[in-house]
Amino acid sequence: MKKTQNKSEFAYMRIAKIIEQQILNGTLRTGDKLPSLRTICREYGVSQNTALSAYYYLECKMLIETRPQSGYYVRYSKTKIPALPQLTTPEAEANYADSELLVRKIYDSLGEDGHLPLALGTPANELLPIAKLNKGLMMATRELKGSGVMYDKTEGNERLRRQIARWSFAMECNLKHDEIITTSGCLNALSYCLMALTKKGDTVAMESPVSFGMLQLAQVLGVKVLELPSDPQHGVDLNALEDALRENKINVCLFISNFSNPLGSCMPDENKKQTVRLLEKYHVPLIENDLNGDVYFGQQRPKSCKTYDESGLVLWCGSVSKTLAPGYRVGWVAPGKFKDEVRRMKRYHNISSTSITQEVIAGFLETGRYENHLRKLRHTLHGNLLKFSRAISDYFPDGTMASRPQGGFVIWVELPKAVDTIALYEQCLRHKISFAPGRIFTLQNQYENCLRLNYGLLWNERLERDLEMLGSFAKRWNLFDSY
Amino acid sequence: MKKTQNKSEFAYMRIAKIIEQQILNGTLRTGDKLPSLRTICREYGVSQNTALSAYYYLECKMLIETRPQSGYYVRYSKTKIPALPQLTTPEAEANYADSELLVRKIYDSLGEDGHLPLALGTPANELLPIAKLNKGLMMATRELKGSGVMYDKTEGNERLRRQIARWSFAMECNLKHDEIITTSGCLNALSYCLMALTKKGDTVAMESPVSFGMLQLAQVLGVKVLELPSDPQHGVDLNALEDALRENKINVCLFISNFSNPLGSCMPDENKKQTVRLLEKYHVPLIENDLNGDVYFGQQRPKSCKTYDESGLVLWCGSVSKTLAPGYRVGWVAPGKFKDEVRRMKRYHNISSTSITQEVIAGFLETGRYENHLRKLRHTLHGNLLKFSRAISDYFPDGTMASRPQGGFVIWVELPKAVDTIALYEQCLRHKISFAPGRIFTLQNQYENCLRLNYGLLWNERLERDLEMLGSFAKRWNLFDSY
Repeated sequence: MKKTQNKSEFAYMRIAKIIEQQILNGTLRTGDKLPSLRTICREYGVSQNTALSAYYYLECKMLIETRPQSGYYVRYSKTKIPALPQLTTPEAEANYADSELLVRKIYDSLGEDGHLPLALGTPANELLPIAKLNKGLMMATRELKGSGVMYDKTEGNERLRRQIARWSFAMECNLKHDEIITTSGCLNALSYCLMALTKKGDTVAMESPVSFGMLQLAQVLGVKVLELPSDPQHGVDLNALEDALRENKINVCLFISNFSNPLGSCMPDENKKQTVRLLEKYHVPLIENDLNGDVYFGQQRPKSCKTYDESGLVLWCGSVSKTLAPGYRVGWVAPGKFKDEVRRMKRYHNISSTSITQEVIAGFLETGRYENHLRKLRHTLHGNLLKFSRAISDYFPDGTMASRPQGGFVIWVELPKAVDTIALYEQCLRHKISFAPGRIFTLQNQYENCLRLNYGLLWNERLERDLEMLGSFAKRWNLFDSY
Repeated sequence: MKKTQNKSEFAYMRIAKIIEQQILNGTLRTGDKLPSLRTICREYGVSQNTALSAYYYLECKMLIETRPQSGYYVRYSKTKIPALPQLTTPEAEANYADSELLVRKIYDSLGEDGHLPLALGTPANELLPIAKLNKGLMMATRELKGSGVMYDKTEGNERLRRQIARWSFAMECNLKHDEIITTSGCLNALSYCLMALTKKGDTVAMESPVSFGMLQLAQVLGVKVLELPSDPQHGVDLNALEDALRENKINVCLFISNFSNPLGSCMPDENKKQTVRLLEKYHVPLIENDLNGDVYFGQQRPKSCKTYDESGLVLWCGSVSKTLAPGYRVGWVAPGKFKDEVRRMKRYHNISSTSITQEVIAGFLETGRYENHLRKLRHTLHGNLLKFSRAISDYFPDGTMASRPQGGFVIWVELPKAVDTIALYEQCLRHKISFAPGRIFTLQNQYENCLRLNYGLLWNERLERDLEMLGSFAKRWNLFDSY
């Protein structure tokens, strides 16, 4: 019995090693489909169990991955993943530069011509469950009192708030529905929180590079932004955070704890816990933007800072804008001990949110439909990310670095210093290729050689061609500079 | 020929005088149905033309009114209309009192028990075209790209903006669609305008009594409110406005030009024109809240201040929240020369509005459905107003005065000085009757004997009984005081 087991072990190991070799030497490329279990059995003359063990071994080594109802795929290719960028080192002084005009230029041209939306940080509508949502809309007109024609309560749809509370248990937040206020999307939640917590001249600390929506919001509110050094894997640097807190420089923190935008970083649970303890020590509230948390590529949803919040200092914000329906404008916030202030902002600026779309989302979350959809979405996005990484490695200039997000929609690319991504952007635009230049993610003169790409798209030849052209333009730039 | 004409004139006049007598002596009461034209012909032995002339004469004297597909009704009853309140005389100094708690108390209890929503300023859902809107929702999922799941443009749905522009021709505003930005309801439009135009410590001039939503918004924005004396018929007092402008006291004006809330006043066209010229002289922008303008009881829609705006100083705000669907959160603003600033506020605080509900409203406005619905709504509301006026006259204490709105949803009631409407409110609440006490419409200690009633309800026995009870409580209060 023992002998058989050993023999079987060797068999699965032998097969696994062969495939591992093929992956490492590039015979099998990221995204390639692997032979089915049945084919392995036939080719190697082994049992289904042995074949399964071989693939399981490779899965554990993160070299391959299963896709439900589809088979096994190559996940990792050592030579095909660009190096990671370093910890960011934003300058200390910040001022509002002309990034606003640039942002406007990029976003106003959207959808008007034949660009793929590589510049956005949101999924293409082909990835969204439109037919199911339409069905939900019909149901909502029947189920919601007055078909959603009447004002909703300021706190928001109760059925939806109960569902958000239920989902919060997945990350051990254990919220109750009456701790949650719905909003018109996540940005609207962040806007209420900032208006409730800050006054003109206050300072908000954020990860650098910063999501430009936050820079703009801070600007119109007259609030200063302190850009904190951040690691592309683990997010905000805790030492830098503590230094700034100690020096009394921060009134409020605003972090994207999971799969940040644009860096794609995810704070490890331990860092989340430490962050909350630090903020408690200095009595500084944290507005936690967790709108990407459900789009994880790992085994389970990462926790949130709210999970570790014992004193009500964390205002946890989220939405379905990145996973179901941006145009529905459905988001939420669990504002901790600032509930009254945030509720007041919502009532005084908006009375209430759109009634009917909240009901649709409530219905979607109540059944298994959301989880089903998320599973597919995560799978597609993860595959896309691997293809993007490979394309960057294949087509972009030598020395290009890229983040390795474990979830979300965006990848941060650091090109060689010589490349000016604003000029590159202008050049690409003429060829109907767009991306988000690094300069719009900061108030300072930095990230000029960086860019952000949205991989929340349907992968196809056009996309591969665009990435190839983008890479070749960047290479040429790099070349010119060396003359 | 001439003789016949004279005889006919006498005949119609004779009939008209008889009916006029019956109205003036109370035989016919406000809201009573008059005999049909056919009955008049038969009873008086006259031609249909003569009968028509008699009713036309009475209509011109505002004694009766036609209701399409229904017949003729008594409109006016001299003895049954309460006297008009005087011009308001707000005190000069303003400070934020505890009206906020009162407002919260009134609005939080809404819909939770068996109150009729007399305290609101919005139509009951029985008056809204819910089935037609649901149909529109189905159509919108088919017609709108991506079924409204995707982000809308920041400016808003173009089809809707074209319709709003088309409607603006009715009041000679003659807007183009690209001068309009959609918002999440009218309050949201006002909030963007105030955020774009004011900074902390600025002063906004408004009509007194002031819509409490505006008081609250001003409060959270740190903006001071200057309450201007206002006439229950003609709105803001232009002399008082000019004085304040001359003394440099005003940064921005915010007026409800048509059927104001809570007073129900409507600025005559000449006043609108003068107001705009005044503001041009002093370079002060006007945020014009025109959300009730479509609910007029006269022959045609009143004009707006925007009609007279030649320099882009008027930011014209509206919505369908009072006529179609408050829960859809569809409003708009034509911000004149402040378009970029307002658009920026929308983008930075919300990105965009809900896509699908905008499309539904666009469809509704494109066909004749909106005009049809408005005709019915105006008719119902006008009838209700007359019934409310009669009930106030019948049941409320002697000396009670009331506004005579020519449109909108609310009537302002001034009870004898002895009545404290906050205490009265508490008393009524125990009997499941609610209303909006006058004190919440000001930052100062005034209007304590006033209240606002919403007549945008289905008239029925319960409603009549509530008004009777409200009146009897007020009478008793008045009585106690005279001891």
